[in-house]
Amino acid sequence: MSSIAVVGGTGQQGRGLAQRFISAGERVIIGSRDPRRARETVATWEATASIAVADNIGAVAEADLVVIAVPFPTVDPLLTELRPHFRSGMIVIDVTVPVTFSAGKMTMLDVAEGSASEHIRARLPESVLLAAAFKTIPAYLLGAAGQPLDCDEFVCGDSDEARARASRLIQLLPGVRAVDVGPLSRARHIEHLTALAIAINRKHKIHDARFRVVGLR
Amino acid sequence: MSSIAVVGGTGQQGRGLAQRFISAGERVIIGSRDPRRARETVATWEATASIAVADNIGAVAEADLVVIAVPFPTVDPLLTELRPHFRSGMIVIDVTVPVTFSAGKMTMLDVAEGSASEHIRARLPESVLLAAAFKTIPAYLLGAAGQPLDCDEFVCGDSDEARARASRLIQLLPGVRAVDVGPLSRARHIEHLTALAIAINRKHKIHDARFRVVGLR
Repeated sequence: MSSIAVVGGTGQQGRGLAQRFISAGERVIIGSRDPRRARETVATWEATASIAVADNIGAVAEADLVVIAVPFPTVDPLLTELRPHFRSGMIVIDVTVPVTFSAGKMTMLDVAEGSASEHIRARLPESVLLAAAFKTIPAYLLGAAGQPLDCDEFVCGDSDEARARASRLIQLLPGVRAVDVGPLSRARHIEHLTALAIAINRKHKIHDARFRVVGLR
Repeated sequence: MSSIAVVGGTGQQGRGLAQRFISAGERVIIGSRDPRRARETVATWEATASIAVADNIGAVAEADLVVIAVPFPTVDPLLTELRPHFRSGMIVIDVTVPVTFSAGKMTMLDVAEGSASEHIRARLPESVLLAAAFKTIPAYLLGAAGQPLDCDEFVCGDSDEARARASRLIQLLPGVRAVDVGPLSRARHIEHLTALAIAINRKHKIHDARFRVVGLR
């Protein structure tokens, strides 16, 4: 059976994804810089019987698909560490968004490559297949097990296989439709959509703004 | 009775907005560089009895609200021409998106100010109130009179009054909800959302992708 490594899996987004994947019957390994502390954290979650924990390298070694769920500012050292451990044909799914919060104000970081996903692409071995996904779905809702998600989630990437695999993962989440938006260069639009959702959350004092595409059957 | 000048009103977006505003009972003046040709164009539209046509300066002189609906690359000479004719407290609504198409490929222009709206703000007199709106609603659908729009439309700006006025204009369109997303600096996210809609249209061979925000009552 294949396994999904969620690197940065104890963060809010990583945890929510790991729990949703497990609910759908997937095997998940949480990757963490500090597996001992991660194991303590995971022990406090509900329905955690099937969550394995490893260090980042160990998680990648055991998985055939890797979800990058660390905060964007920590992506560079993570990929330097992991780079020799990715295997040819492995699928990586980037869920990061280049935003920071300071004094309650959200700022989008200026990423030279145009998006977090393209930044990550430039730091992965060429033989690894990358898709961007799970960037807009609110972490808060992912973690609210049983709550209907009722939204679309956007996928892009230059590998048909990675986009298809990411789309299948998205469809595991009840009430979520995968919308393929094409090449990896579209990631910047998806990341801005997340920033727009955050802006709507702040302006309207909610925490789960998300989107449906109208006009797409 | 107040009047809405739609500058660039013979383009697809401007025409669709003008027709929708008129259907809602508003007085509209189409502003054009070439009013004689614009008059011939407007004469071919349905239900055009109440559409006045003027040159750009004339349209602004008669209106209390100005919609900028020219292609983004022509905004600079337009604003140089119009700048002396804006009146203090006038409301301007920017509907432009900084995208170009070449050989079937969409490209977002790199706008130094961060967005088309901030670029326009920098070229307007300070006493003019600016809001961004109508950037994501598909021009194709605007022009399909009687077709339900069924989507949300996003508003931002640093003037409460301009945002409120833009929101009221949006609510004139049947089936459209106005979503206020805060300051003008949010315009870049909205413009990327339009680029995402265009990407979805191309990938899925449709022409009316648009959005609903879920989670906002």
